[in-house]
Amino acid sequence: MTSQHEEVVATTTPDTVRNYVGGGWTTIDGETHPVVDPATVEDLAEITYTSADDVDAAVGTAHEAFEEWRRTPPVERSQYLFDLKGELEARADDIAEALSREHGKTVGEARGEVRRGIENVEVAAGIPNMLREGSGIVEDVASGMDESAVRQPLGVFAAVVPFNFPAMIPLWFLPYAVATGNTFILKPSERVPLSSQLIFEAVDAVDFPDGVVNLVNGGKETVTALLEHEDIEGISFVGSSSVARHVYETAATSGKRVQAQGGAKNYAVVTESAVLDRAVPNVLGSVYGNAGQRCLANDVVVGVGDVYDDLRERLVEGAEDLTVGVGLDEETDIGPVITPESRDRIDEMVDEAVAEGAELVLDERDFEHPEYPEGNFMGPVLLEGVTSEMAIAQEEIFGPVLCLASTDDLEGAIEMVNATDYGNASTIYTERGGEARQYRYEVDAGNIGVNVGVCAPMGFFHFGGRKASFFGDLHAQGEDAIDFYTEKTIEIERWFS
Amino acid sequence: MTSQHEEVVATTTPDTVRNYVGGGWTTIDGETHPVVDPATVEDLAEITYTSADDVDAAVGTAHEAFEEWRRTPPVERSQYLFDLKGELEARADDIAEALSREHGKTVGEARGEVRRGIENVEVAAGIPNMLREGSGIVEDVASGMDESAVRQPLGVFAAVVPFNFPAMIPLWFLPYAVATGNTFILKPSERVPLSSQLIFEAVDAVDFPDGVVNLVNGGKETVTALLEHEDIEGISFVGSSSVARHVYETAATSGKRVQAQGGAKNYAVVTESAVLDRAVPNVLGSVYGNAGQRCLANDVVVGVGDVYDDLRERLVEGAEDLTVGVGLDEETDIGPVITPESRDRIDEMVDEAVAEGAELVLDERDFEHPEYPEGNFMGPVLLEGVTSEMAIAQEEIFGPVLCLASTDDLEGAIEMVNATDYGNASTIYTERGGEARQYRYEVDAGNIGVNVGVCAPMGFFHFGGRKASFFGDLHAQGEDAIDFYTEKTIEIERWFS
Amino acid sequence: MTSQHEEVVATTTPDTVRNYVGGGWTTIDGETHPVVDPATVEDLAEITYTSADDVDAAVGTAHEAFEEWRRTPPVERSQYLFDLKGELEARADDIAEALSREHGKTVGEARGEVRRGIENVEVAAGIPNMLREGSGIVEDVASGMDESAVRQPLGVFAAVVPFNFPAMIPLWFLPYAVATGNTFILKPSERVPLSSQLIFEAVDAVDFPDGVVNLVNGGKETVTALLEHEDIEGISFVGSSSVARHVYETAATSGKRVQAQGGAKNYAVVTESAVLDRAVPNVLGSVYGNAGQRCLANDVVVGVGDVYDDLRERLVEGAEDLTVGVGLDEETDIGPVITPESRDRIDEMVDEAVAEGAELVLDERDFEHPEYPEGNFMGPVLLEGVTSEMAIAQEEIFGPVLCLASTDDLEGAIEMVNATDYGNASTIYTERGGEARQYRYEVDAGNIGVNVGVCAPMGFFHFGGRKASFFGDLHAQGEDAIDFYTEKTIEIERWFS
Amino acid sequence: MTSQHEEVVATTTPDTVRNYVGGGWTTIDGETHPVVDPATVEDLAEITYTSADDVDAAVGTAHEAFEEWRRTPPVERSQYLFDLKGELEARADDIAEALSREHGKTVGEARGEVRRGIENVEVAAGIPNMLREGSGIVEDVASGMDESAVRQPLGVFAAVVPFNFPAMIPLWFLPYAVATGNTFILKPSERVPLSSQLIFEAVDAVDFPDGVVNLVNGGKETVTALLEHEDIEGISFVGSSSVARHVYETAATSGKRVQAQGGAKNYAVVTESAVLDRAVPNVLGSVYGNAGQRCLANDVVVGVGDVYDDLRERLVEGAEDLTVGVGLDEETDIGPVITPESRDRIDEMVDEAVAEGAELVLDERDFEHPEYPEGNFMGPVLLEGVTSEMAIAQEEIFGPVLCLASTDDLEGAIEMVNATDYGNASTIYTERGGEARQYRYEVDAGNIGVNVGVCAPMGFFHFGGRKASFFGDLHAQGEDAIDFYTEKTIEIERWFS
Repeated sequence: MTSQHEEVVATTTPDTVRNYVGGGWTTIDGETHPVVDPATVEDLAEITYTSADDVDAAVGTAHEAFEEWRRTPPVERSQYLFDLKGELEARADDIAEALSREHGKTVGEARGEVRRGIENVEVAAGIPNMLREGSGIVEDVASGMDESAVRQPLGVFAAVVPFNFPAMIPLWFLPYAVATGNTFILKPSERVPLSSQLIFEAVDAVDFPDGVVNLVNGGKETVTALLEHEDIEGISFVGSSSVARHVYETAATSGKRVQAQGGAKNYAVVTESAVLDRAVPNVLGSVYGNAGQRCLANDVVVGVGDVYDDLRERLVEGAEDLTVGVGLDEETDIGPVITPESRDRIDEMVDEAVAEGAELVLDERDFEHPEYPEGNFMGPVLLEGVTSEMAIAQEEIFGPVLCLASTDDLEGAIEMVNATDYGNASTIYTERGGEARQYRYEVDAGNIGVNVGVCAPMGFFHFGGRKASFFGDLHAQGEDAIDFYTEKTIEIERWFS
Repeated sequence: MTSQHEEVVATTTPDTVRNYVGGGWTTIDGETHPVVDPATVEDLAEITYTSADDVDAAVGTAHEAFEEWRRTPPVERSQYLFDLKGELEARADDIAEALSREHGKTVGEARGEVRRGIENVEVAAGIPNMLREGSGIVEDVASGMDESAVRQPLGVFAAVVPFNFPAMIPLWFLPYAVATGNTFILKPSERVPLSSQLIFEAVDAVDFPDGVVNLVNGGKETVTALLEHEDIEGISFVGSSSVARHVYETAATSGKRVQAQGGAKNYAVVTESAVLDRAVPNVLGSVYGNAGQRCLANDVVVGVGDVYDDLRERLVEGAEDLTVGVGLDEETDIGPVITPESRDRIDEMVDEAVAEGAELVLDERDFEHPEYPEGNFMGPVLLEGVTSEMAIAQEEIFGPVLCLASTDDLEGAIEMVNATDYGNASTIYTERGGEARQYRYEVDAGNIGVNVGVCAPMGFFHFGGRKASFFGDLHAQGEDAIDFYTEKTIEIERWFS
Repeated sequence: MTSQHEEVVATTTPDTVRNYVGGGWTTIDGETHPVVDPATVEDLAEITYTSADDVDAAVGTAHEAFEEWRRTPPVERSQYLFDLKGELEARADDIAEALSREHGKTVGEARGEVRRGIENVEVAAGIPNMLREGSGIVEDVASGMDESAVRQPLGVFAAVVPFNFPAMIPLWFLPYAVATGNTFILKPSERVPLSSQLIFEAVDAVDFPDGVVNLVNGGKETVTALLEHEDIEGISFVGSSSVARHVYETAATSGKRVQAQGGAKNYAVVTESAVLDRAVPNVLGSVYGNAGQRCLANDVVVGVGDVYDDLRERLVEGAEDLTVGVGLDEETDIGPVITPESRDRIDEMVDEAVAEGAELVLDERDFEHPEYPEGNFMGPVLLEGVTSEMAIAQEEIFGPVLCLASTDDLEGAIEMVNATDYGNASTIYTERGGEARQYRYEVDAGNIGVNVGVCAPMGFFHFGGRKASFFGDLHAQGEDAIDFYTEKTIEIERWFS
Repeated sequence: MTSQHEEVVATTTPDTVRNYVGGGWTTIDGETHPVVDPATVEDLAEITYTSADDVDAAVGTAHEAFEEWRRTPPVERSQYLFDLKGELEARADDIAEALSREHGKTVGEARGEVRRGIENVEVAAGIPNMLREGSGIVEDVASGMDESAVRQPLGVFAAVVPFNFPAMIPLWFLPYAVATGNTFILKPSERVPLSSQLIFEAVDAVDFPDGVVNLVNGGKETVTALLEHEDIEGISFVGSSSVARHVYETAATSGKRVQAQGGAKNYAVVTESAVLDRAVPNVLGSVYGNAGQRCLANDVVVGVGDVYDDLRERLVEGAEDLTVGVGLDEETDIGPVITPESRDRIDEMVDEAVAEGAELVLDERDFEHPEYPEGNFMGPVLLEGVTSEMAIAQEEIFGPVLCLASTDDLEGAIEMVNATDYGNASTIYTERGGEARQYRYEVDAGNIGVNVGVCAPMGFFHFGGRKASFFGDLHAQGEDAIDFYTEKTIEIERWFS
């Protein structure tokens, strides 16, 4: 552990994606798969999926490390997190570049993402105080008898994270899990494993005790092995709703704690009082940012009443101005989507919407990059006349597609918003306090934005979520993370002499 | 709603167990089953099991009631709880008598149980303050942007509760569920539905809005209908670990929040510094109280080192002095167990233990009540030489059986304690602070007693539980209940003008 | 202690105002003073001021009662508060009538006041949970060393309360002081001691242990004796800023905890987006309610921009419609002010304002009640053209006088609001979220209303206050009250064997 | 602001003690005073006392800086604290050396002190989460009306700190004051101003916005100017009880928030169950560490019952083994006391104690350092037979003097402990849980140690204190600091449309 870091930091991602188990980099045997740059379609590295046996070994290592790590005073544990913040900041640009490359998002988006990740490390560095919060002691619950609730860690936790935020989402879990005294295993998305390679370079530089923080790469089998392993106390998952539900069920079957974030279908509602000058760029950023591959993207935008025409015009203009390109180009607004399959899926959704009666106002799906014609690029799409009955109004698009709808009044808009199975996030653009309050009160979503298109809670608040967007009861980040990663053990104490 | 209650209260339980749905008593069609007094073997009443269709109707009613109840200010909702406390106190003796009769426990135990139930109503009456706790608002999460987390109720919740605390366990859930603004359905154990009849007389007297608090009686089919109903947001369960696990899995599959308390296997450890004069009666109360049918019963008692012989002698003496009888007799120490099947099961466990090498020091299994020879009575049993390898050291007994074991040192004792699959509660008898601290630190149980044999957390603390004793992460009672019954919705807000 | 209360409750106030010390009513010797009905100018009762010696005796009694009361489990202490709620509710109408009579406020206002008082008893009944809140325990602050903070009561507390809310303000303190395990002495205003007589009838019916809750009546000497008594741990005060400052200083000199609420000068700002239909009655209620004798009265109303003319017209119309009369008449809107001196003082303030350039739009100062021509009545006054430079814009009026001002924009209005020495409360009438946020952010007041003219925090929140309106740091009510009445004792613990 | 710090850091203290105001080092005119090394009696530097006018200028600067600093998002403010931690760590050894030199304490003690200071910077770096804690929002306090409490900073705060912990005590205040959004002025002890010079080198390196963090050096006049300045919102003070009481009173008179820590008279009680092998070194460290100049020193040690003789023997042996010397020598156990006047005062206290009947068991008061015969050295003293009646049992010694007393039982010991006017800290050495509980429950002190001789709360807990040891209600450090430095502004909000 070091609080200064003058050594040369490893900043290039390796050709071979490695695991990090027991305090060191390990390679595993097995079939290799390519990690493909979604823009250039080049192979960036190769990855091997961790087998159930190797998962078992990693869990064993983490399990062994637990007893001593748990006994390490929280103030000492926090020093690792202070250091990790420093090490991550020293690598921030490199991580951003690697993640832009593997995921396709713009490097500006990537830098913001890394910052949001580090923010969680900062929050978790406050662990001594957060362990105090929510604990408690009361004297004389009966005469001479005192009762207390003290936070204790549980053992090994794992997180299975998705492709869309390869640097941020691991850090929703890792810092809190280890700060609270648990040991931890990360399983990144097999499509974007490179950011995690660099994050674990930072972990390695911090020199956590062996086995406290671990990384296993892999696919479905790897996940199953984690979900079913009896020495794992709890699982965090972020991904699609169908898999989240499966994770919830499987982990529940093996008696684990679970927090499983699923998909989303987020709406933005724009009312007549909205300030369009400010709202429209915000809407566009929400929909087309990250190429729409964001669980907080508001991919349906509902104009209420007379605002519609003006809103539509501005959105179309704004969407037309967006630049599609390689994420590493600073001028790019929309990078490629993650895979050709993903592009096809989006394509079909748009076609189906049109078949169901939506109107294509802007359609740059056939965008071809001059340099990388094979890249998974897709230009911005804007559909009008979308209604609740259409599939595209109910299913997550996860691509650069904006669906426009209109309603007569706010009540109608809220009805549309609540008609989906999801409850992740939703935004209202309004300057009226009453509309904002009504929206927060009546919309069934965990994260409500008022004039905030990407309603991402800060690290010191949990990340809300309801309905099919979240399975469990304690969320990622903030105070919920502390609750998830600790048991508040009850002690009732008296003395006879 | 009334804060005075001069009217005559209904205090006798009905011949026919009724449901309470939509603000009134309802009867349902179907096959009837007897509710049997375990002491006298008389039929106390008859009960019909609620079908899936009738469950659906009840959920519908609760669902309908939600929107308005949610909008009722918490301060107004709390008035119902203040009143409920009064109504329950007015009926406390009657509830105690009914539950002593249907369950068999002594009337003294029954009175204590009712009091513990009412305590939760008292805590929930503080709901306005509890809704504030854990919510939050921070200005300038970015410049001019504020973020808040506000507690909101979710909809319909249900609780499925066991036979062993027919009056208390319903009140671990009902008061918090409705105080937070949800609506609620209780499913009592079909063996002991009469206490709930009286509790719902109190509910009825309070005059909650129709559909806010509901009661459905029934068995397995009823439970399944609740677990799978898509309009139920969350399930609380208390019962055996195998069913708890099933509940966790089934409810998870349907995307619900779940808190499922399972079985227990609790140990008491008595060290050389223990004050036996005080410890022994406390141990006996823990083991034989409620005829051992208590998830906090410490049915294995481990003497550490030299204390063993003296401890053994005193326990045997004390156990011999216990009076077996009908619960309603004030001099009874041990009432009947709940069913003949239960008695047979305990019987076999004891036989098996003896076969495995345990020694029967006291064996009053063949106790026959002079007046009620058919009653499910079983006198106290005390086994010696119990080791971790025996089934009786690993499985919950739920009968008046004390298993004695001995170890050389505290570490050995803790090893025995942690060797079970369960993690509900555990007690150490010691006067040494260091031993108590080590015990809390090293024993994997949610509720640790220090010289407290029945380590039941007060209503303003949650009820801990780990390993196979609890599935989920938020527990019953106290601050966890508020977390379970609310979503802390995130709002991120800024204004453009 | 009883949770039912069938006995006849004492509901008429006595001819002689008594003290309540050591669990019983006591009378003291000394010169008597009349308690005068401000409407009818009749003597309602006579009161004797408690001497320093008698204060000393009361403190002694409270001090003696402390040790045992402190040891009474919080759950048991809370039962007294549950009962007190019942007893107060049983007397609510009588208290309201007595307070309407002694103070002059309308009986409707009096009923509302009693309700707000009882609300604090309800909150304090949740004391077991509130003692848990803010306490804490963290394991391994160093290896094997645990640290905890546990709430403990301190001893004897006293509260000195003002004439304007004779039933509510005592209950900002009494319930929390005793719930936390302290003992308590109330000193009501000598002008309105009768409500407290009835409140203590309720206290007496609850049968607190002797010496836990005490009442001493008196004037300045009585207050001084309390402030300087070395066995009093802390003082709560509500009154004028000059006395509050004196109390802060005196109590500080004797080393006590202090919370001293002073006067106020509250502004309401009405913006162009305000809904006047709803805002105007709310403004009128705030200004003229309680005859303006309310530390939350917004006695200056600032119209921003074009809204002014319409606002002015509606306010004048509304003010003209108000009925002056005896508080007990149900149709009365404005009761008398507390004393002739008070009426004269207000009279002069208005004259001075006119001399400084304000314009009298409505002036019913010479209202004479047909039946009680000697009563301290004063009809509504409305002044226009008030500016920050006038004394009436800086000093609390505490009478039925509305001052109208206007500014071009919100910034100008906020400047006016912040120009006073006070920081109690302030209200904005607006429908724009951004204006509300700006107001909360920039106005230096402890209680900010958005479309709420009497911004009185609920009992489960503290009552804010800044600048000359509050001296100290922990406020009345809610979570601050718990902090004020307890020391969170730190324990750092380890064991060597 | 920088998160890496490769520049050369200033590590030597200057010849002239400077102020730091408005973001830069400033020198002031006026008479100079020497800063004297208490061991060598050499002049280390010279210091000028800041006049009231210069204080006024500093307050003005801080006041100006407030508005923008307050608007800086907490997450950004926290970055300064993360950086400050790094800068302080980079200078830790130099600060420790400077403080050993100016104060006399051993360099080992100095290093520990710096670490405890940095710990508070770490806690304050968690400010975003701590601002959330204790804030709150509740929907529907009335129908459609929401209430919230949001933490807001207040303006300029100042801290006046003592000579005994020149590096740690400034950091009890500075980090929290600025993290919460206030601006801050530190006034160090004029005897030991050099540590603060280095701390402000770190502050300077962090590059806080000008005026956010300020340093003024000086004496009595400087303090008075701060206490009475109307633009200072609150004062923190640590020093003697008489001055603390004066500060409380003066600051109260000018309406400020105050937290004033005074002197102490701490007892350690050693019971028969204590593990003397471990307890005795701990006692010696508590008494003689920092040459006894510690408000947590337990300078009276009470042996209970039969433990006394053995305890006495071991303490005498241990005390005889202590090495007196210059703090910078690594082998020194006891450095010099701060001034010759201090040495004389201690000398007289010991003489007086002997005159009152105490017996001198060890008396090395006449220790003379071979190299620095003029140094303020004083060897260890051990007095026996101390009783409550003696002055030395009631007044703080603040020198290397251990007073031994004995009692028959724990009750007698607790009586002695509580007989003083102070209530800072107290320690019990015991292995019995019951004795520890009784001690925490019955001893009137804010910080209770169980087998912990220097009961210094961690930064994430407040520093307790009662009776004449603390004036105010919110303490230094941790969650109390956040409460002290913020007003939880209440907003009650509804919308009419």
